[in-house]
Amino acid sequence: MTIAYDGTNYVGWQMQPNGTAVEEVINKTLSELLGEEIIIAGASRTDSGVHALGNVAVFDTDTRIPADKISYALNRVLPRDIVISESHEVTGDFHPRHADCVKTYEYNILNSNHPNPMLWRYSHFVYLPLDTEAMKAGAEFLVGEHDFASFCSAHAQTKTTVRTVYSLEVEENTENIRGMHLADGQKLITIRISGNGFLYNMVRIIAGTLIRVGHHMYPPEHVKEILEACDRTVSGPKAPAQGLTLLGIRYYT
Amino acid sequence: MTIAYDGTNYVGWQMQPNGTAVEEVINKTLSELLGEEIIIAGASRTDSGVHALGNVAVFDTDTRIPADKISYALNRVLPRDIVISESHEVTGDFHPRHADCVKTYEYNILNSNHPNPMLWRYSHFVYLPLDTEAMKAGAEFLVGEHDFASFCSAHAQTKTTVRTVYSLEVEENTENIRGMHLADGQKLITIRISGNGFLYNMVRIIAGTLIRVGHHMYPPEHVKEILEACDRTVSGPKAPAQGLTLLGIRYYT
Repeated sequence: MTIAYDGTNYVGWQMQPNGTAVEEVINKTLSELLGEEIIIAGASRTDSGVHALGNVAVFDTDTRIPADKISYALNRVLPRDIVISESHEVTGDFHPRHADCVKTYEYNILNSNHPNPMLWRYSHFVYLPLDTEAMKAGAEFLVGEHDFASFCSAHAQTKTTVRTVYSLEVEENTENIRGMHLADGQKLITIRISGNGFLYNMVRIIAGTLIRVGHHMYPPEHVKEILEACDRTVSGPKAPAQGLTLLGIRYYT
Repeated sequence: MTIAYDGTNYVGWQMQPNGTAVEEVINKTLSELLGEEIIIAGASRTDSGVHALGNVAVFDTDTRIPADKISYALNRVLPRDIVISESHEVTGDFHPRHADCVKTYEYNILNSNHPNPMLWRYSHFVYLPLDTEAMKAGAEFLVGEHDFASFCSAHAQTKTTVRTVYSLEVEENTENIRGMHLADGQKLITIRISGNGFLYNMVRIIAGTLIRVGHHMYPPEHVKEILEACDRTVSGPKAPAQGLTLLGIRYYT
């Protein structure tokens, strides 16, 4: 299943003692729909407040409902902030977290004198003007295979902190693009990043670091030094969750 | 003041017995902030669920806070779904509902197999494919000065149902434009209309009529016949509130 959700009202993808998780809602709804206990396995454990347009999950079932119809049946009963955008059958050995893939995330920053009532759930509001060109220059140092230890939250457990970033774009929109609901004079800065995997909080720490570059607190070249230091204490702060959206995951299977 | 709001949780701009109104929240917050009783006069009485990026309101005050600082002070205490995007002083005789102006509205339709968890508050979800070219052709008949009685809810009280539509564009976006959060394969159709004033529910009835054109229930030329009939019973249904946003109001003063 390809899954889209607004993460605002959830504790994240994964079950937690302190609130409702996205996977929990889908497990419960699917189990009721199919009349058997379903436990989905997700690709990406997004944090509380983080959104997705294309997270991926699989499950085993004995149902006779055709796989491509499950999305429609499920969307009738799911809350409005979780949508299954597509469903199809996969082989039994496919696991969305272990298969090779390219993940793409987007981090949205509303850079404006005033916040925007339609974008507070989906962007990080930054008052002081950001220099997008400087952010672009800083972003370039992160493209390629690197040890991203400086961009990984300390309590993460992972075999290696080496990852490959295939692309990292910084874009600026000032026009009132349809459906985007930007007010006059507001600027939306989007950081879009694709890679073969991301460390815990990596995109949000990259966003927080590039915001410092945009505020001229760091020159763009300092991003290279941060990367080479392999030390979380030298990078910028973790930018808030609501700016982050998992756009999609492409598998090579 | 220029005012932006997410209308989802309000009964509309104007006070109603059955819930909280946008003007009510602003009146209360402004009165507390300035320490005097403030009653704002708004330009446009948007309905429940309708959004605004640029509604306009004025008020009288004895405060010493500079007019252009009031927006900042107010945004600190307003809920996140109401934002004052700008404030400045006007002459005492300016009334935003009576002054000549051009108003611009946008109606957003998500045309897709599946809904979108980030767009349900801000668009009308339409499952069956819409023919945008047919909608454009139908829209052309509405541009200019006409009697829009066919596009006005019955219980409206107004001296005349003649209005001038300066422009009416129908646009389609299928790309994942930054910040718009469209999923793969989803199409957002935007109806954007500017005029010297709008009758009660006029934009939503135009949207409902153009959706029928997009579904080939009406040929585009039928929009001309509907207009000429001056009869609400022959036009399409009123499209739902959440698709509508008041983009802005331009005054000639």
